[in-house]
Amino acid sequence: MAELVEIDAADDPRLADYRDLRDVELRKHLEAEHGLFLAEGEKVVRRAVLGGYAPRSFLMAPRWLDGLSDVLDRSDAPCYVLSEALAEQVTGFHVHRGALASLERRPLPSLDEVLDGARSVLVLENLVDHANIGAIIRSGAALGFDAVLLAPRCADPLYRRAIKVAMGAVFSLPWTRLPDWYDALPALSARGFTTVALTLAPDAVPVDQAVAGLDRVALVLGSEGHGLSARWEESADRRAIIPMAAGIDSLNVAAATAVACYVTARR
Amino acid sequence: MAELVEIDAADDPRLADYRDLRDVELRKHLEAEHGLFLAEGEKVVRRAVLGGYAPRSFLMAPRWLDGLSDVLDRSDAPCYVLSEALAEQVTGFHVHRGALASLERRPLPSLDEVLDGARSVLVLENLVDHANIGAIIRSGAALGFDAVLLAPRCADPLYRRAIKVAMGAVFSLPWTRLPDWYDALPALSARGFTTVALTLAPDAVPVDQAVAGLDRVALVLGSEGHGLSARWEESADRRAIIPMAAGIDSLNVAAATAVACYVTARR
Repeated sequence: MAELVEIDAADDPRLADYRDLRDVELRKHLEAEHGLFLAEGEKVVRRAVLGGYAPRSFLMAPRWLDGLSDVLDRSDAPCYVLSEALAEQVTGFHVHRGALASLERRPLPSLDEVLDGARSVLVLENLVDHANIGAIIRSGAALGFDAVLLAPRCADPLYRRAIKVAMGAVFSLPWTRLPDWYDALPALSARGFTTVALTLAPDAVPVDQAVAGLDRVALVLGSEGHGLSARWEESADRRAIIPMAAGIDSLNVAAATAVACYVTARR
Repeated sequence: MAELVEIDAADDPRLADYRDLRDVELRKHLEAEHGLFLAEGEKVVRRAVLGGYAPRSFLMAPRWLDGLSDVLDRSDAPCYVLSEALAEQVTGFHVHRGALASLERRPLPSLDEVLDGARSVLVLENLVDHANIGAIIRSGAALGFDAVLLAPRCADPLYRRAIKVAMGAVFSLPWTRLPDWYDALPALSARGFTTVALTLAPDAVPVDQAVAGLDRVALVLGSEGHGLSARWEESADRRAIIPMAAGIDSLNVAAATAVACYVTARR
């Protein structure tokens, strides 16, 4: 059972994990250095704990205690209880969903672990927007994908906003970082995946044709602004496009991913 | 040719349209009362003008003048030229994409005008998030939809963030507000559309089956938090679901819309 600790000062040093949540740069450093991440909202906090992440502490206003009692019952971490006004002072914003938890990061799984038994995987190159990362992982999980692989420069799936947009799917869908950018796609081909890059390249075929009948598929998506690098575009086994109306240049990357996952799941 | 007007004070009254762009509530009132909206970024500003919206004025740092010279050449509106530091003082944020324009809103078209010749339309109930509205309109445009109809409580597609996420598709894809919420779907049925509501209702069938072979289709999407109202869910001709992996409750509404549009475009 988590110990309930009443807090009456915003500068209480025990709240260090929860400071200034709107300051993205500060949070990135703090979370990396201390090996922690934040989950926000009753549903997402529960999913993080069920997903096997160990809580360092919880922070919430009294009225959220009941809703999370099942989670608190089985944890030994302290639960800091404070007024909503005080919570806002600490975090820098109004905590709509009421409950926060700070959890321990875990070592990233190896590529072998993540790909074991996988038939459909998403491979993301340099997606820097946390909301896009979260939306893509949520879509991948909902549409039956088995894993997500992130190029070294992709945004952190355990950043608070990514977790929130993913509705906690980052805790259930296996993911890891690719150790090597340059040969990432040939390495997947060597493991028996057909790598299918979504792109506007001239030799791209409609995505349903590109994935038809394939066994193991790796769908490859590029960054928001510039799409895939030339290296990844060229080193993919196939190039595919989502057919679009005349005069429209592109779909948002999260929308394109949802469509491509849907089509690929039905190959 | 737009007259270039150099500005050297952040409180210059001619910049009234551009004040405090991050203050959502203030902007809503200001834009509604003055019948204006803001477009941001060279590409989006150009699309607004090509879409037939009359500029009230432009605002930009000197280095953006060349890129928009084609647009400025054919406008009589003033172009306020100021330093990036001054622009940031006026708008309240760093103007990444450099160019802003204030444009006149137009009377919303009638339902008859928007539906004239339309075969595939999106109908949105109470979507309150500007980014979702923008993403959905962008996907609808890209995937060949003909129009978007908004329930009275939906967020404004001409709000700056919606326009930005839509990459200007709000200027090319016809849209309007539904005059009546309660009978909106039966009214569309009476016009020859089969209304297909995306929902988790027990009688929902996979979306590809729901739209197969239909002529005129209206895809109906509900709000981010609670989905469709009971009234809309029940008054739709059909209920459809995007099949999802076990244990996952839903896709993000923008992702679900992209998938449903893709499937419907291929019915």
